[in-house]
Amino acid sequence: MKSTIKFSFVGFANLLLAVVMVAAQAAEPLPSWNDGAARSAIVKFVDTVTTQGSPDFVPEPARIAVFDNDGTLWAEQPMYFQLLFAIDRVKALAPNHPEWKHKEPFASLLKGDVKTALAGGEHAALEIVMATHAGITTAEFEKIARGWIANARHPTTQRLYAEMIYQPMLELLDYFRTNGFKTFIVSGGGVEFMRAWVNEVYGIPPEQVIGSSIKTEFRINNGVPVLTRLPEVNFIDDREGKPVAINQHIGRRPIAAFGNSDGDLQMLQWTAAGDSARLVAYVHHTDGDREWAYDRKSSIGQLDEGLDEAQAKDWLVIDMKKDWKQIYPDETKQAMQ
Amino acid sequence: MKSTIKFSFVGFANLLLAVVMVAAQAAEPLPSWNDGAARSAIVKFVDTVTTQGSPDFVPEPARIAVFDNDGTLWAEQPMYFQLLFAIDRVKALAPNHPEWKHKEPFASLLKGDVKTALAGGEHAALEIVMATHAGITTAEFEKIARGWIANARHPTTQRLYAEMIYQPMLELLDYFRTNGFKTFIVSGGGVEFMRAWVNEVYGIPPEQVIGSSIKTEFRINNGVPVLTRLPEVNFIDDREGKPVAINQHIGRRPIAAFGNSDGDLQMLQWTAAGDSARLVAYVHHTDGDREWAYDRKSSIGQLDEGLDEAQAKDWLVIDMKKDWKQIYPDETKQAMQ
Repeated sequence: MKSTIKFSFVGFANLLLAVVMVAAQAAEPLPSWNDGAARSAIVKFVDTVTTQGSPDFVPEPARIAVFDNDGTLWAEQPMYFQLLFAIDRVKALAPNHPEWKHKEPFASLLKGDVKTALAGGEHAALEIVMATHAGITTAEFEKIARGWIANARHPTTQRLYAEMIYQPMLELLDYFRTNGFKTFIVSGGGVEFMRAWVNEVYGIPPEQVIGSSIKTEFRINNGVPVLTRLPEVNFIDDREGKPVAINQHIGRRPIAAFGNSDGDLQMLQWTAAGDSARLVAYVHHTDGDREWAYDRKSSIGQLDEGLDEAQAKDWLVIDMKKDWKQIYPDETKQAMQ
Repeated sequence: MKSTIKFSFVGFANLLLAVVMVAAQAAEPLPSWNDGAARSAIVKFVDTVTTQGSPDFVPEPARIAVFDNDGTLWAEQPMYFQLLFAIDRVKALAPNHPEWKHKEPFASLLKGDVKTALAGGEHAALEIVMATHAGITTAEFEKIARGWIANARHPTTQRLYAEMIYQPMLELLDYFRTNGFKTFIVSGGGVEFMRAWVNEVYGIPPEQVIGSSIKTEFRINNGVPVLTRLPEVNFIDDREGKPVAINQHIGRRPIAAFGNSDGDLQMLQWTAAGDSARLVAYVHHTDGDREWAYDRKSSIGQLDEGLDEAQAKDWLVIDMKKDWKQIYPDETKQAMQ
């Protein structure tokens, strides 16, 4: 009898310990962030704006946090993932376009020479996007984008692209939402490309995704209303476009903003210029081992002017190498397998 | 003693009765709607999509309901209220524009001759809107619109414009939200004009308001970032524009849509064409005594093509005269005073 009681007691103590540990884990936000200035600044800001009676208290509906996507919520090297999607689409569509064999930028792309294909600059990139993103209905495009995100793999990491999102940022999104924030994406990426997967991956619903877009047209085809995607730019959600789009779409100024490049600078300026407490932050790509290290000289995600302004204005700069315990969500899982 | 007890008992019984009546009232949705086909159709639809296990069950995040504003949530006669706002602005700004005395459409407006001023059609209306809505920052415009809605009165009813919203539609918005719907405005009206007041009046936050817009530009004025409103149309949220804007802004198809004019037809068609259970409805202005009676021949809020389609497709047509016990929210309050 005695040993049974003892055994039970140990069992109970273990159970209690497990419960306490789970509770502690649940109570401790941002587990993938190292203890340091970045994590502290975030926690302090959230405490400040959510504490009833604090002079900096912000009521729940006004707790708007905006996040760039490429380079802020997921990786963006060696080029924006949506461009890799477009290149895959060029290959898939090539059989229907025999003329592409002799027409740039498609001819080079089909030979695998991305550099030459993109040498035509913005015009070449736009041609690739329009050939692959337009001329179909919104429903057809969504299906294609979903299929790609579910199956395509990154050229160097061999991961699914949705496995190249940043675990610490996932925790940050969740932490904000737990504290009554509405989280929005404000990205230069295509709005319909992102909407095909961001709800499942980040928990951000379609109506909280703002991006670049091409025009669409409402038509009734054989009695069925459709929206057809036209080969015409509607809006470029980058640089000065970001505060414009935030105002157009959200209609109130965010109190927190996260970006990683000069393309996010105006969004951060607009957020910082509000009256109450603000959190304005850059994710700085400093980890060449676990991810990529780049800033002032990079052709993708250049952070030069923005880094100067962040330093001058004392904005938070998140150092990926120092501040993040892990980069992608599945590292722990992989280590456990 | 006995009478005291009796008195207490009656008091208790009255209290109990009052509690029961309040509970019954709280449980009974849409109190300003007469019992009839319209009210039944709405309640049945909401029950259907919110009943777990029903084949037509719709999970909460996908319960999107869209509402036109002018003529659907508030009145729109003798002309769109935003045009009355613009006319008031022309009068307020006239001292700074001596040239308006001799320049149409302003000259006629300033003489009180709205008909002649608007004889120039769309071009004249656009000139009035641009002169009164552009050239200032978004913050300045918001302040002006808020001031107007708080003070200006309708030319014939003498009510504040915010007192000319429809009580049954307020209850409908509330009923939807209580049942897990997100309610959006999708209106031809200016998005920033509406956002200045719809949150307080309808409980619809700025990020759920979609409307027409002019372009804005991000600038830094003496170190302060501002958005300046430009005299250039960005988007007209009417007819074919409504499904385009719904897709652009919400990114998923609504399951319920309410309009009152041909300008809402494409929004209703787009909503009706979804897969699951839908509620697609027109508010029909049939009450010339309590409000205005108009449809096929009206220059404001014309409902002609839409009425034919509603009848052909068996959409719900809400008859304001028959279906609504009261029109505006303060009638009861006024009667009680």
